[in-house]
Amino acid sequence: MYSFRNDYSEGAHPQILRALIETNLEQTVGYGEDRFCQEAAELIKRKISRGDVDVHLIPGGTQTNLIAISAFLRPHEAVIAPLTGHIEVHETGAIEATGHKIISMSGREGKLYPSDVRQAVEAHTDEHMVKPRLVYISNATEVGSIYTKDELKALSETCRALGLLLFMDGARLGSALTSDKNDLTLGDIASLVDAFYIGGTKNGALIGEALVICTESLKADFRFHIKQKGALLAKGRLLGIQFTELFRGNLFFELARHANAMATKIQGALIALGCPLLLHSPSNQIFPILPNQVIAELVAKEYSFEVQKRMDDDHTMIRLVTSWATREDAVDEFIADLKKLL
Amino acid sequence: MYSFRNDYSEGAHPQILRALIETNLEQTVGYGEDRFCQEAAELIKRKISRGDVDVHLIPGGTQTNLIAISAFLRPHEAVIAPLTGHIEVHETGAIEATGHKIISMSGREGKLYPSDVRQAVEAHTDEHMVKPRLVYISNATEVGSIYTKDELKALSETCRALGLLLFMDGARLGSALTSDKNDLTLGDIASLVDAFYIGGTKNGALIGEALVICTESLKADFRFHIKQKGALLAKGRLLGIQFTELFRGNLFFELARHANAMATKIQGALIALGCPLLLHSPSNQIFPILPNQVIAELVAKEYSFEVQKRMDDDHTMIRLVTSWATREDAVDEFIADLKKLL
Amino acid sequence: MYSFRNDYSEGAHPQILRALIETNLEQTVGYGEDRFCQEAAELIKRKISRGDVDVHLIPGGTQTNLIAISAFLRPHEAVIAPLTGHIEVHETGAIEATGHKIISMSGREGKLYPSDVRQAVEAHTDEHMVKPRLVYISNATEVGSIYTKDELKALSETCRALGLLLFMDGARLGSALTSDKNDLTLGDIASLVDAFYIGGTKNGALIGEALVICTESLKADFRFHIKQKGALLAKGRLLGIQFTELFRGNLFFELARHANAMATKIQGALIALGCPLLLHSPSNQIFPILPNQVIAELVAKEYSFEVQKRMDDDHTMIRLVTSWATREDAVDEFIADLKKLL
Amino acid sequence: MYSFRNDYSEGAHPQILRALIETNLEQTVGYGEDRFCQEAAELIKRKISRGDVDVHLIPGGTQTNLIAISAFLRPHEAVIAPLTGHIEVHETGAIEATGHKIISMSGREGKLYPSDVRQAVEAHTDEHMVKPRLVYISNATEVGSIYTKDELKALSETCRALGLLLFMDGARLGSALTSDKNDLTLGDIASLVDAFYIGGTKNGALIGEALVICTESLKADFRFHIKQKGALLAKGRLLGIQFTELFRGNLFFELARHANAMATKIQGALIALGCPLLLHSPSNQIFPILPNQVIAELVAKEYSFEVQKRMDDDHTMIRLVTSWATREDAVDEFIADLKKLL
Repeated sequence: MYSFRNDYSEGAHPQILRALIETNLEQTVGYGEDRFCQEAAELIKRKISRGDVDVHLIPGGTQTNLIAISAFLRPHEAVIAPLTGHIEVHETGAIEATGHKIISMSGREGKLYPSDVRQAVEAHTDEHMVKPRLVYISNATEVGSIYTKDELKALSETCRALGLLLFMDGARLGSALTSDKNDLTLGDIASLVDAFYIGGTKNGALIGEALVICTESLKADFRFHIKQKGALLAKGRLLGIQFTELFRGNLFFELARHANAMATKIQGALIALGCPLLLHSPSNQIFPILPNQVIAELVAKEYSFEVQKRMDDDHTMIRLVTSWATREDAVDEFIADLKKLL
Repeated sequence: MYSFRNDYSEGAHPQILRALIETNLEQTVGYGEDRFCQEAAELIKRKISRGDVDVHLIPGGTQTNLIAISAFLRPHEAVIAPLTGHIEVHETGAIEATGHKIISMSGREGKLYPSDVRQAVEAHTDEHMVKPRLVYISNATEVGSIYTKDELKALSETCRALGLLLFMDGARLGSALTSDKNDLTLGDIASLVDAFYIGGTKNGALIGEALVICTESLKADFRFHIKQKGALLAKGRLLGIQFTELFRGNLFFELARHANAMATKIQGALIALGCPLLLHSPSNQIFPILPNQVIAELVAKEYSFEVQKRMDDDHTMIRLVTSWATREDAVDEFIADLKKLL
Repeated sequence: MYSFRNDYSEGAHPQILRALIETNLEQTVGYGEDRFCQEAAELIKRKISRGDVDVHLIPGGTQTNLIAISAFLRPHEAVIAPLTGHIEVHETGAIEATGHKIISMSGREGKLYPSDVRQAVEAHTDEHMVKPRLVYISNATEVGSIYTKDELKALSETCRALGLLLFMDGARLGSALTSDKNDLTLGDIASLVDAFYIGGTKNGALIGEALVICTESLKADFRFHIKQKGALLAKGRLLGIQFTELFRGNLFFELARHANAMATKIQGALIALGCPLLLHSPSNQIFPILPNQVIAELVAKEYSFEVQKRMDDDHTMIRLVTSWATREDAVDEFIADLKKLL
Repeated sequence: MYSFRNDYSEGAHPQILRALIETNLEQTVGYGEDRFCQEAAELIKRKISRGDVDVHLIPGGTQTNLIAISAFLRPHEAVIAPLTGHIEVHETGAIEATGHKIISMSGREGKLYPSDVRQAVEAHTDEHMVKPRLVYISNATEVGSIYTKDELKALSETCRALGLLLFMDGARLGSALTSDKNDLTLGDIASLVDAFYIGGTKNGALIGEALVICTESLKADFRFHIKQKGALLAKGRLLGIQFTELFRGNLFFELARHANAMATKIQGALIALGCPLLLHSPSNQIFPILPNQVIAELVAKEYSFEVQKRMDDDHTMIRLVTSWATREDAVDEFIADLKKLL
């Protein structure tokens, strides 16, 4: 029995747990004003090579999205997002619950392109419609793809030309940045978007996302918004300690690299076996299309994964996700089983 | 140097950390559907002696308040709360941000009485005003007092007679229930209120509050609300493991009892020294009124606490809070220092 | 110069203005509790042949939509609407501003069918997604089409089977009900939907829509919602007097019939001239596709209308709308001009 | 039988009705972009002697308050208002429904003073509390008092020093500005507040309030907010025509002067009869405290008014309101009746 269901199946990387234990009885002030949160913010700024960004540690991804977006927008302003975007599909209307419409555009392979953005803006002509103001993208995307530097640059330029903010959901940013196909750095991202977050939950932390606000005008009073939405943890140190461990050295990147390596291995095997894929994923999520019978047999062997979509009477797309914790021997065994079945 | 600033100055009780480590590599499904969350819910139901309540684990207190209250109310309905209530004073308008007015009543010693509730209801006569629908109380209150069984019974009867829901914020419920003055059980509370929560963050957990919904009509679709407000943790196990430890045996109550004992000891010393208090606190928060010079000297000795209120030119009320982690030797030393200063 | 831009280009039908003048100095109580509002409600109930519905008079259409929908839904519930629905396209995110997502489905000719509704429901499987709860349709639709009795019956049955509310935006209900193609009565609608409104603004009133709530569970406290959203007019009589005039006899239907007749005449001429149309409209909005040069010449002759959509390099779709006030001689002259140009 | 219940008991001033009739068949564009709305805005700007303000015509007062306040504030910002303020008491939580807390201060005679504002600001110290950002006042107030120029100047200076916006609800601004005690002009107000509105509904119009935005940074995209909240009337001309009549000459002020004169006459008689009052009202609302028996006899004579507050076992405060339409002979008869009863 092994789960490829997601990248949050296990607890935290042992180094993080160790740090929690070692600091456990140190008394700190609450609500993220402790020395651990400050150190984490400093370490992250250093990795970005930017002293002028604001870093806020927030427990979860949906929360980070809704706090940032509702803080950045006026009531009549809307978000442009891809049809597959997490805020559009899998956050129970969290953005709309703060009062803002999401304009969903089809995009391509989970990504938005300048033409999508321009089309959305052109379709909204006057005060009888919402005013598009923020472009939401994910990197890696919900279908495993990642943005190249050129793609992000083009999108950034379009946004700036049209007076739009660009926000990147980085729940799986670690996987994106350590992908073989990646040519972006944290510094590049900080210079191309207005705000983004670095996901901890899906990359070795128990909980926690580090929101980075790059644009000066978006910074004021941000902690009010975190508190109002219930995301200012009394024991903020829980977030600070974890991100300190992730960014003190290269742990964050090493964990993501492992996840990618495991996914790449499985994907390579699937390709070799002639199995069709939604796309050649460069990150830690892969989407093979398998005969239903094979899926049934994998389930019988107690492999666990998400079923994504019925393709035809006999085939279904599933999602396989690897993480910092995915064991290589489990991957090898899974591949061996696949070989028997395909 | 020692901090009596709050009950979330340290990390978690070691037994909780140990459980996190031991279960760390077990793979679970996400979002609170794992076996730990289920076990925690079962343990809590058993402590309440009620199989028919719903238990939801939520990261923080502000979040629990805003999710529950916004889920329970229709748009025109309002909350009655004491002037000192946490949602009225210290949650950055979180309830109003979900669209609901708080009608604040003065109450007495941080508590609401039937007369407060009736007065609020009588003042709201028609559709030009909000409709009072939910009464919010805290136990222990924000000023350290607790509800007796008779008080809670009377309030509950008033609410039921007036068609109002009764909601108890239990961020410090452990301290209330283990107070010398307490005559309430978890079962009593469950039968007298419509929903309440059992605070973990301020009683030995890293994060986490256990919301208990007692009234059938409030249960439907509740997980949608948790998700929409960003409080459904991907690694929900983090909450489940902690509450399992707290409620597997009596840890939750032992930790609170220790906090109370430490506060009682300090309060006893202050009374013996003739120091006036906001009220004789039965719980883990005490509010002495001290000469400003004494406060300055305590600060010089690196004691840390919250300054509450200027009383006159020479006196100020401070807040001292103890917790599961408060060391008795630190308390003794603090008392010794107080004796020298007062 | 003549405007076919919309059905609210002129003021009110003279009979309505006369009634305003005649009753002007009568003193009434405010906020819709006057005798005129009561009489209007009674007249409407009689036309529906239902004594058990609630009727509320509300100044405008966007307002009626947002008040009704936000009153009917809990925070996690969503609206299913056609892509062309007024709330999806032309109300500046009014529904989302009350916290609710709109799930837009393509439908056909501006209408939703059972398959659209089922598809939307099936795509929303758990608490990570909003919960579809209300189906929004317009009759006549935004593209001029109308629902047949069979279509509405099928939709109603689907909604009831799936636990969904059905809401009809009747901004142009007069035009729909008096169309040659119509086989629905007000009574049919009241028995098939949960709530609907009868549009006054686009059918001879200065302002005003009559919301009819048919389903018992949706009625409670509705006036609180009207007031909270700012739609309870101090001089509610303004609405009551108008709807009394519209429904005392058959004025409401006569005005709509005239609008339809004028549109039918223009559409007939266009068809005879071989002009393609978006669809054969049975109501007071028609959507011809014209050569750009013809459009330019119509503009030069000071005809006014909305430009809808570029079809190709040489052709554009426009919208022509007629109303209770459209003069037949202006229609005839317009047709004569069209004949010269096409 | 005569009603002193409010200043919206009758329809509109005849000159307004006449204008509606005369312009009735003129075709205009919709949504407030017609020539009447433009003319009304120009006339109002001229009365204010300021070309650089924005004027928006909005159907009602609650609507104007909620649209303006929600457009001006970010999500964490709050309103400071007097305890008696209309938004605090009589708008069904309309402001909170847009997400913002109201901090209510006691003030004096319905008015806020610099000390109230400073106290509210000082009590809100950090991100655990809302951030006070806008001060809401009414002129005339809900208890009939008005602001002097010195009072408004002092309040304005305090707001500017503290970074707060100042907003004036002018539902009864006509009565305030034409009071014997008034020393403010429309121009003064425009220079001292950030936005205010000029009430039409309570001063001779059927519906309509003219919102004046004075501060540049508050102007952008304002029509989006009007539309989103459902207040952009399709037949915006209805508002334009009315305000054009009110401000073409001095009709607005003449109507208010009449209302004041009628109130002054009644109040003078009450004072002469030794009747106690809540305060010596300088405007069109007066609040006498009468023996319950007298009130019963007035009711028996079919006088209509609002009962405000029980003062003791034998006395009750009522509210008498006069308007542009109050007949002097009815006032004289009422006074004669009072003389017989008191």
